[in-house]
Amino acid sequence: MSLSRLFNPRSIAVIGASRNPDKIGHVILRNLVEYGYKGKIYPVNPSANEILGLKAYKSVLEIDDEVDVAIIAIPADKVLEAAEECGRKGVKFLVVITSGFSEAGNEEGEKKLVEVARKYGMRVLGPNIFGYAYTPSRINATFGTKDIAVGGISFLTQSGALGIALMGWTLMEELGMAALVSLGNMSDLDATEISDYLADDENTKVITIYLEGLKPGTGKAFIEKMRRVVARKPVIVIKAGKSTRGSMAAASHTGSLAGSSRIYEAAFKQAGVLEASTVEEMFDWARAFSLLEIPRGDKTVILTNGGGVGVLATDAAEKYNIPLIDPSNELKNKLRKVMPWYGSVRNPIDLTGGALVDNYVKALEILEESDEVDNIILLYCRTAVLDPIELAKTLAEFKKKLSKPIVAGFVGGADVREAIRILNKNGIPTYPSPERAVSSLAAMLEYRRIRSRLGGVA
Amino acid sequence: MSLSRLFNPRSIAVIGASRNPDKIGHVILRNLVEYGYKGKIYPVNPSANEILGLKAYKSVLEIDDEVDVAIIAIPADKVLEAAEECGRKGVKFLVVITSGFSEAGNEEGEKKLVEVARKYGMRVLGPNIFGYAYTPSRINATFGTKDIAVGGISFLTQSGALGIALMGWTLMEELGMAALVSLGNMSDLDATEISDYLADDENTKVITIYLEGLKPGTGKAFIEKMRRVVARKPVIVIKAGKSTRGSMAAASHTGSLAGSSRIYEAAFKQAGVLEASTVEEMFDWARAFSLLEIPRGDKTVILTNGGGVGVLATDAAEKYNIPLIDPSNELKNKLRKVMPWYGSVRNPIDLTGGALVDNYVKALEILEESDEVDNIILLYCRTAVLDPIELAKTLAEFKKKLSKPIVAGFVGGADVREAIRILNKNGIPTYPSPERAVSSLAAMLEYRRIRSRLGGVA
Repeated sequence: MSLSRLFNPRSIAVIGASRNPDKIGHVILRNLVEYGYKGKIYPVNPSANEILGLKAYKSVLEIDDEVDVAIIAIPADKVLEAAEECGRKGVKFLVVITSGFSEAGNEEGEKKLVEVARKYGMRVLGPNIFGYAYTPSRINATFGTKDIAVGGISFLTQSGALGIALMGWTLMEELGMAALVSLGNMSDLDATEISDYLADDENTKVITIYLEGLKPGTGKAFIEKMRRVVARKPVIVIKAGKSTRGSMAAASHTGSLAGSSRIYEAAFKQAGVLEASTVEEMFDWARAFSLLEIPRGDKTVILTNGGGVGVLATDAAEKYNIPLIDPSNELKNKLRKVMPWYGSVRNPIDLTGGALVDNYVKALEILEESDEVDNIILLYCRTAVLDPIELAKTLAEFKKKLSKPIVAGFVGGADVREAIRILNKNGIPTYPSPERAVSSLAAMLEYRRIRSRLGGVA
Repeated sequence: MSLSRLFNPRSIAVIGASRNPDKIGHVILRNLVEYGYKGKIYPVNPSANEILGLKAYKSVLEIDDEVDVAIIAIPADKVLEAAEECGRKGVKFLVVITSGFSEAGNEEGEKKLVEVARKYGMRVLGPNIFGYAYTPSRINATFGTKDIAVGGISFLTQSGALGIALMGWTLMEELGMAALVSLGNMSDLDATEISDYLADDENTKVITIYLEGLKPGTGKAFIEKMRRVVARKPVIVIKAGKSTRGSMAAASHTGSLAGSSRIYEAAFKQAGVLEASTVEEMFDWARAFSLLEIPRGDKTVILTNGGGVGVLATDAAEKYNIPLIDPSNELKNKLRKVMPWYGSVRNPIDLTGGALVDNYVKALEILEESDEVDNIILLYCRTAVLDPIELAKTLAEFKKKLSKPIVAGFVGGADVREAIRILNKNGIPTYPSPERAVSSLAAMLEYRRIRSRLGGVA
């Protein structure tokens, strides 16, 4: 069964919807309502007639409509009965928030849950999750933040607490999300199958995964299926539990076998999955993938107004194997005309601290036209002569005329932070340091190589 | 001559002070006045009687007072004459903002400048710099930001543009600074000598250096002198120009010979200087050094309310060689009493997503008392039940009773960012990710090992 109705349901029942605002069942219902889900919402609660202005039902069986998704947020010992009722009702997806299953030693209960689902042809997300969200359908069926920034990043997480915390963080960082899925115990739906669905989702430009471990025996299938995913969409994973002690902690945390870090590294490499070393790095890369098309080539220039950041970016480019071009004399001559005499037309191209908006724009026009250049790393250090917000606004406008990928690194204080916001809003992935911009372009170039190797559209 | 009068001058002349607010000579004077320098300020300008409410002098020779420091911000061809006058006046330090010396091929002019200074026993900072600052004396003699956050980090930079941009960034990040020195061409005073002075400065807790390259032939002296600095204070360097192309760019940028990255790495290692891989990492580490005393031992625990961040921190601890202890049964039993039954008393100690402020405080009390623990990595994921600001305020208060170093990683949105601010203000170095907290503690433990090897007070 396609997961289409999970992400585009016509109706959602919330079993365990509560009037008590401290209860998870209340928070999920409220988030669903307030984030603006347009389908039908059916609260299910045996002792309420109305919750948050919506008619409540004693049982899912009483709902006089088709129910595509049932969110289940009731005590563990009541979940099987509710699942049975959902099955009889013809529900397609069970999203089981409730914990107290295999992660707490209750393998039996989890097995039975899946059996009930199978019997009725239902699929199960969870149990032991904080919910899921899909911004194109305005679904926020989580007990995380009310709001979610909209964009092309889909995020699957095996850690609930980190997932919820990252909902707040992505909102603050204005990282635009498509799907957000808490994987929990992966009793049925797992990271691989959800990724496979999202690879064909037109709203998802990149898939990010916080992974503690695969289920025993699923490694080979992971590699095979993920290769097919990666041929369509970039996948970035952060693998937690790589250290000996970390893997023990992960085992006690999600009950998954974390396994040797080498095995995972090899599996990711075979699958073409990009492995980030920190959560921050994963989302840095994801930001670039979500805003830019995959580069058409790897010939890159650095354009800067500061020598120091130019050097730092150059070091990073070499570290990450980004080929920095040597501009031809023709290109150099053109560039020389749009910068102060003491600037540098080598790569990094240094417009100097005297650079104004016009210097950047004219240099970009030349680089856009030149066949020698595929990608541009644009750097800016706060100077007295060039207001970062003015530069950001001009670049946001100029971007429309530009076909080549730009990543940017802007260094400075509060107004530079605002400029970074403007650029990210306008499709130029921008970071507060040169290295993070370079690292993000490097991830895109790496994906370009992987995809062409895997036979995807390169 | 000690550099004491450079950082604690009784009077400062600004040669080239201008009434035109666009001129560097105006901005420096204004920053000096507005940041609240308490000594005497003497603007020097042949065609003004008064600037910013201060009496202006036609020449430094006309000033009827001792002048400890002269800031020189006039065209390059007038600098030698001004230096002569300063010498005759008895000025002790020339801070030469003006560019157009060795970095632009004018080695001759720079040599003459140093000769004039030597003749009169003056020392030279620069030329080709954006100035310097020292917050304990309320000196901001730069053309960077007006304000500078006060604290224990001293920062020396060979890149002007990056240095100015980082002034804004450190202010926004509330990184407290002591000295801030633009090194420029290092015609006389260099990174080594200034570090040597700051190693005895009671306001400096850590020295950070953005370095592109040492002067040819000064490598051996760097190692020897820096070892003596490192025995007194931690030194963190970010070395730019480590790549082949980056070193070429650095050479054209500051005129320094960047040299092989291996040689620099070996030199830093011999000198006991900590090498950061990014500017952000350098200041992450510096934040920890500026707020904490050097750890007394390396036995470390992770305390968390989120399994996922606990695992990520554990991985990072192993990567950075931080010894995570196995708590004794006695310690485990004590911890068990202050957490939910489904928590974990192994290391990472997992208070679970149900943790409240009280769980953290009680666990910290136990860890503070235990001989098994030297350092604490405290992690928090935003949960619905525990307000990060409430936690931060309680921890800030509790800190006073705590003798053991804590570094913290807080993950979440806008309120978590505010909690991070509160903690940093109150002496607990706190970062927006678990890995950055771990990396910062690791740098402190590494310094502890280095200092004991170098025979410093360990």
